[in-house]
Amino acid sequence: MPRSRSITRARIVEAAYSLFYRNGFARVSMDEIAAGSGVTKRTLYAHYDSKDSLLADVLENYHQLALARIETWARRLAPHDPGSIDKLFSDLAVWSGRSRWAGAGFTRLAMELADLPGHPARKIARRHKAAVEARLAKAFGSVQAGAEMMLLIEGALTLLLIHGSGRYADIATVAAKKLMHHLPPATSQSVPSGRGF
Amino acid sequence: MPRSRSITRARIVEAAYSLFYRNGFARVSMDEIAAGSGVTKRTLYAHYDSKDSLLADVLENYHQLALARIETWARRLAPHDPGSIDKLFSDLAVWSGRSRWAGAGFTRLAMELADLPGHPARKIARRHKAAVEARLAKAFGSVQAGAEMMLLIEGALTLLLIHGSGRYADIATVAAKKLMHHLPPATSQSVPSGRGF
Repeated sequence: MPRSRSITRARIVEAAYSLFYRNGFARVSMDEIAAGSGVTKRTLYAHYDSKDSLLADVLENYHQLALARIETWARRLAPHDPGSIDKLFSDLAVWSGRSRWAGAGFTRLAMELADLPGHPARKIARRHKAAVEARLAKAFGSVQAGAEMMLLIEGALTLLLIHGSGRYADIATVAAKKLMHHLPPATSQSVPSGRGF
Repeated sequence: MPRSRSITRARIVEAAYSLFYRNGFARVSMDEIAAGSGVTKRTLYAHYDSKDSLLADVLENYHQLALARIETWARRLAPHDPGSIDKLFSDLAVWSGRSRWAGAGFTRLAMELADLPGHPARKIARRHKAAVEARLAKAFGSVQAGAEMMLLIEGALTLLLIHGSGRYADIATVAAKKLMHHLPPATSQSVPSGRGF
């Protein structure tokens, strides 16, 4: 792809991402995306023939960025280290406390497209959540613990959004620590603390 | 309100409820709601001056219905009774396995309106979730346990929707039972098993 073309494409993807995240997928029009990325509708359609195909690109891009961010915090997680649980949920509380925070992007999108399980965006959301869960399972050295942590994270993000109160991060922290007590004792299966993987 | 007027209103609320639940709030038009409830747009607007005011009525109605349903299953919950946890999450799995199931209505709506924390629908969603959580706290005889159960339920419903797999109901069941081990032993604070409240 020529460089100017790929720069335009990146600009469109970035503008579309903020508009979708801020207002939801259904409420954003191709007109607004063209305006937001400073291109004509003719140029926009030369890159993407539909809002759906643009969304697929936006999500693929966001999936990669989000995985990199998740790797950063997953490295700090360690089974039998309650401090790493504190850090995980306090980071979520800080994130959710930002102005204009509008929930977890993939979860919100899956809910918005709840009636369309075959939509390409739903598939990327599934793949993304599965990747996060696998990373948690690795960090805790247990498939069940990874899935439990995923339940608490999703539940906390939903209730943080609904109630706009950091309380649910505290509740999730306490619950996660109790669940950690049930992890098998540190063995070769667990991941040593303080090491990258 | 004259009887025929209230029958029309109920018909509109019911049609709007299924359309919103099936397709999300943003994607449904007043035209479709008029068609779905078999009234003219003129009649529809004589009852509701906007989609937002109609949504408020739909949610108030749904809140009452959902609370009645929740009371039914909350009555069966008892601290220190693992069977009641099995039943709770297997009911969620059955519900989520229905064709055209599209997630928890209030959660989905809060996500769809994530950028509008002051929207009347967001307030009703908050009130509804708080009522469910209070009922769970009563059933388990503990505020923390009620909130933890809420986290697991919200997390399970989200992941059941995203992955379309009953696995997350099983994961939540195992997690909820572990958390139950941490409940204070049955005392006057707990709610006796098998009794209505």
